[in-house]
Amino acid sequence: MPTAKAEQAARTRQRVLLAAAEVFDEAGYEKASVTQIVERAGLTLGALYFHFGSKQGLAEALMNAQPTTIEPRLTSTGLQRLVDITLVWADRMKRDPVLRAGVRLATEQGSHGMNDATSFEEWRTLMCSHLDVARSSGELRDGVDTDRLARFVVGACTGMQIYSDLATKRDDLMERVCDMWDLLLPSIASEAVLRDIHVGPTRLPAQ
Amino acid sequence: MPTAKAEQAARTRQRVLLAAAEVFDEAGYEKASVTQIVERAGLTLGALYFHFGSKQGLAEALMNAQPTTIEPRLTSTGLQRLVDITLVWADRMKRDPVLRAGVRLATEQGSHGMNDATSFEEWRTLMCSHLDVARSSGELRDGVDTDRLARFVVGACTGMQIYSDLATKRDDLMERVCDMWDLLLPSIASEAVLRDIHVGPTRLPAQ
Repeated sequence: MPTAKAEQAARTRQRVLLAAAEVFDEAGYEKASVTQIVERAGLTLGALYFHFGSKQGLAEALMNAQPTTIEPRLTSTGLQRLVDITLVWADRMKRDPVLRAGVRLATEQGSHGMNDATSFEEWRTLMCSHLDVARSSGELRDGVDTDRLARFVVGACTGMQIYSDLATKRDDLMERVCDMWDLLLPSIASEAVLRDIHVGPTRLPAQ
Repeated sequence: MPTAKAEQAARTRQRVLLAAAEVFDEAGYEKASVTQIVERAGLTLGALYFHFGSKQGLAEALMNAQPTTIEPRLTSTGLQRLVDITLVWADRMKRDPVLRAGVRLATEQGSHGMNDATSFEEWRTLMCSHLDVARSSGELRDGVDTDRLARFVVGACTGMQIYSDLATKRDDLMERVCDMWDLLLPSIASEAVLRDIHVGPTRLPAQ
């Protein structure tokens, strides 16, 4: 059972993370300042450095927090789970600052001298694990390489998001994700499963 | 017929563009300086400002130069042309500074306050025109939306490139592009054409 002190520390950490997410999402990494972040959080610089070590440590924590903002919202399994992850992700990219900051920092990291594929590899491992469940349930066509498919979906979502953001401020991101599944499912889903997989905003959990 | 003066101007413009590409590719937009660029080009600041107006003007010219570094190398048509564009692109991303800088600037532009989907839309329009040829030659399955497919391919290539760069310094970019076509072609190519479309580095034109 966590002590009152540990609970307090977790809450402080979360406040810093949320304030940092908002500032990074609005300003980008270079223009964001740690002073701005702690002011928004109503905390001290000491709290930021205690929990994250540096501005870069904060950015890494946000990049790697992406799956934890999506996965707990889902109950489906196998191929439907993979589809649902991308739909919930597309929906939450419109309004979840922690997710938006994580994605922005991961895709723009080259511009501020970082070079860390961890957040991409974590998505890939997670997606691959759901595809392995799909495989053992007979949901996949023969010959589908689950790891390469997961790698492709992570890359495709990354790029769709950038293009959608520039072209429509992400208004069409959900539509683009649905297009991806319309294109991929006939190649990867077994005949019997293909008609049972649902793609579209109706898959989103109640808010 | 261009005059000697116009030819000289075109050569100067190209020298600035190439030097800028190298500097942006190495340092990113923020850290690149116009002084560094003209020094590398062996020219004056006046030449840079005359041809491009500003550092941002240079960045825009590079972002929008992408298709011109790929298209002249190809002779195929229709769906094979679309595949070939992506294969040549994956290959040249390893060593063409103008292309690398253009892609880097387009994907990281959010971090330096730019917001310009032009280079993405130009790729999409170009790819869509080849898909329309494919459609009129009976190469596509019924129900394929050529514009949405083009939009998806542009987004997917954008993200594959970022992930591949972070994970393997683009060593596996060609493999990832081939994976994309293995996944997409069964959904989009008509039965008769599917076995005639070639995917792989053997499609690259002789250097």
